Amino acid sequence: MDTSPMWYSCNCGGLLQLVQDFRALDVELLKRQFHERRAERHTLMASGVWRYKELIAPDLPTPYIVSRNEGNTGLYQSERVRSFTGVRQLWLKAQSENPSGSFKDNGMTAAVSHGRSLGYRKFACTSTGNTSSSLAIYAATAGLTSVVLVPDRDVALNKVLQTLAYGAQVRTFTGTYDDGIRWLDKYAEAEGLYVCNSVNPYRIEGQKSIVFELAQDLNWTLPDWIVLPGGALSNASALGKGLHDLYTLGFIDKLPRVAVIQAEGASPFHQMIASGGDALTPEVKPSTVASALNIGNPPSWRKARDVLHLTNGVTAAVSDNEIMEAKLLIDRSGIGAEPASAAAVAGLRKLVNEGAIHSEETAACIVTGHLLKDSDALRTYLDLPESIQHVRLQS
Amino acid sequence: MDTSPMWYSCNCGGLLQLVQDFRALDVELLKRQFHERRAERHTLMASGVWRYKELIAPDLPTPYIVSRNEGNTGLYQSERVRSFTGVRQLWLKAQSENPSGSFKDNGMTAAVSHGRSLGYRKFACTSTGNTSSSLAIYAATAGLTSVVLVPDRDVALNKVLQTLAYGAQVRTFTGTYDDGIRWLDKYAEAEGLYVCNSVNPYRIEGQKSIVFELAQDLNWTLPDWIVLPGGALSNASALGKGLHDLYTLGFIDKLPRVAVIQAEGASPFHQMIASGGDALTPEVKPSTVASALNIGNPPSWRKARDVLHLTNGVTAAVSDNEIMEAKLLIDRSGIGAEPASAAAVAGLRKLVNEGAIHSEETAACIVTGHLLKDSDALRTYLDLPESIQHVRLQS
Repeated sequence: MDTSPMWYSCNCGGLLQLVQDFRALDVELLKRQFHERRAERHTLMASGVWRYKELIAPDLPTPYIVSRNEGNTGLYQSERVRSFTGVRQLWLKAQSENPSGSFKDNGMTAAVSHGRSLGYRKFACTSTGNTSSSLAIYAATAGLTSVVLVPDRDVALNKVLQTLAYGAQVRTFTGTYDDGIRWLDKYAEAEGLYVCNSVNPYRIEGQKSIVFELAQDLNWTLPDWIVLPGGALSNASALGKGLHDLYTLGFIDKLPRVAVIQAEGASPFHQMIASGGDALTPEVKPSTVASALNIGNPPSWRKARDVLHLTNGVTAAVSDNEIMEAKLLIDRSGIGAEPASAAAVAGLRKLVNEGAIHSEETAACIVTGHLLKDSDALRTYLDLPESIQHVRLQS
Repeated sequence: MDTSPMWYSCNCGGLLQLVQDFRALDVELLKRQFHERRAERHTLMASGVWRYKELIAPDLPTPYIVSRNEGNTGLYQSERVRSFTGVRQLWLKAQSENPSGSFKDNGMTAAVSHGRSLGYRKFACTSTGNTSSSLAIYAATAGLTSVVLVPDRDVALNKVLQTLAYGAQVRTFTGTYDDGIRWLDKYAEAEGLYVCNSVNPYRIEGQKSIVFELAQDLNWTLPDWIVLPGGALSNASALGKGLHDLYTLGFIDKLPRVAVIQAEGASPFHQMIASGGDALTPEVKPSTVASALNIGNPPSWRKARDVLHLTNGVTAAVSDNEIMEAKLLIDRSGIGAEPASAAAVAGLRKLVNEGAIHSEETAACIVTGHLLKDSDALRTYLDLPESIQHVRLQS
């Protein structure tokens, strides 16, 4: 057991990232292994994260790993959603099908496993919901303690209920996600807490698996664009790092471009990029119906900026109305999504309309959270009870 | 297109079942194929149902099949849950990880596909929740119309919201699940509706895949007992039919015993078995916290009785308190379940305590529905807001 404290950020103010030495890897051999491992079930290599262990945490001893068969999510094509966005071909990668119902599980399995290998027994995060329920599920699976700090407003109630049910200690506070991050930054080490927010570089390593699986699903040829919602921006950071790995190792021979979509009410990253600036001005009062995107000071903005540079990427911001319009369509297609996920589809449509993405191009959107995660949002847009017809059954 | 009407029941009052001719099948070849198909993704054979097409619907033309990558669910072992039940070894098969969040998807993909092959465009069911959201997801995926009849009380709101979101026409009525079944029985054909309740024999064929996957996961050796909750009893019927197929074909060389667990407030099947009777007396006012089990006149009781005869099976009934005690434990183990699923675990514990199941035996419980499916139940037992601590973050 390594007892040195865990560091998450650099003296420069940015976040740390793991630099891995992949020189000894044989790509063709790995491709064959990754294919064979897909036939496994209920072993570590059956996981859609740990299947790629060589690229994620090659040195982490397997007895420490807490896995829940995460990944292995559906990749869907819906003609209705495609024609709504206007691209030639569209895939939806449903990370909503993870055990806790969101993409966070891909990274959380790596972070909790790493914390265990250091000997930690108490794990913490601050969260608008999905991170906390993901942390709670992995801590519960391993018999560890989880402590989550949740802002006392603009959070989906179902996610808090889910987190509590898995046995996490839930502490609400008056403030935003960003206040919670600052508190953990100052006090976590003293309280013996291993921090599982996306400031944790192992979260990022684990989340790379989303694009690994997407690439493998598509036989190592990615679409022209990958589009994803941007809140804390860890997803964009991880995507970029995963793409970098795949490209430099030779798994793929062309980098896709990345589009990061924010909600208008919480879009400091988009505003920075759109204005050509290179320093993020936090949004002090973030506000959007997409609770998972309600983050004014995204910790991973530097990494996400680098991803845009690497991939010639773009950003967009979409209104709450545009988000809910896209959500309705994704739900009606039978795929279903929480509002944050719908932002990616709404943003893709906007970027095609603006000409930033050409209608002859192809794209994949990451569906980040399950429809059931936010039934408050459903209740609002479904206009209950008007959408339900009461009938008298003839006898 | 076959335009003959669809029949669901026999003149004897019982339900129809499909009798398949498996004589030409080569079991060793199929085992190899089933293994190889597990490496597939995003093709029909990647589905945890259609992987076993030869045993489910060999003659159904594949272009009619609507699949959502269902099945491929986790098989978990939790020491906490095992020691609670008292058996030597326990597996939890998490059908809660299906796309719509319940075991119903295994059967629904088969029923909707069959209805399509007959040319139907409108699909209907009556449901306490899980069947309706499953029907809605498959109808939406195929661009078909779904109509669901939902009792106007004792139904989990989240399931109705989910069903509406996928675009189903939801009609509530004053009455029970059983009244809805009777109405469909009389009027569906005249209204051009293909009925997707478990009276539909293709539902049963599809649901057999749950035990096929469990058997394959365990390398074709099943535990001593398979324990599952009993509401409409389609799950028990399908399990029994699947076991019969596996055993007569030679995939397994020993039949496990089956235990069907009902909620005390809706336990007509258990009462019939316990009293040694051979005719079911419906429960006129079923009432249980496990909304998915709130069924007083289970349509599949004859088939379920035959399954008990085939496997030397047993039944039990558990109280709402016992259900919620087991749910708390399953949730805290990180697996999570809706109340109905917890009934299986509670019943297993009871049967071990009563000596009907020996502590040296092994068992698998089917987790039928996702924790997020019933957040009303969470809200009740979590005792909000007392379980949440409000903190002031030091700055």
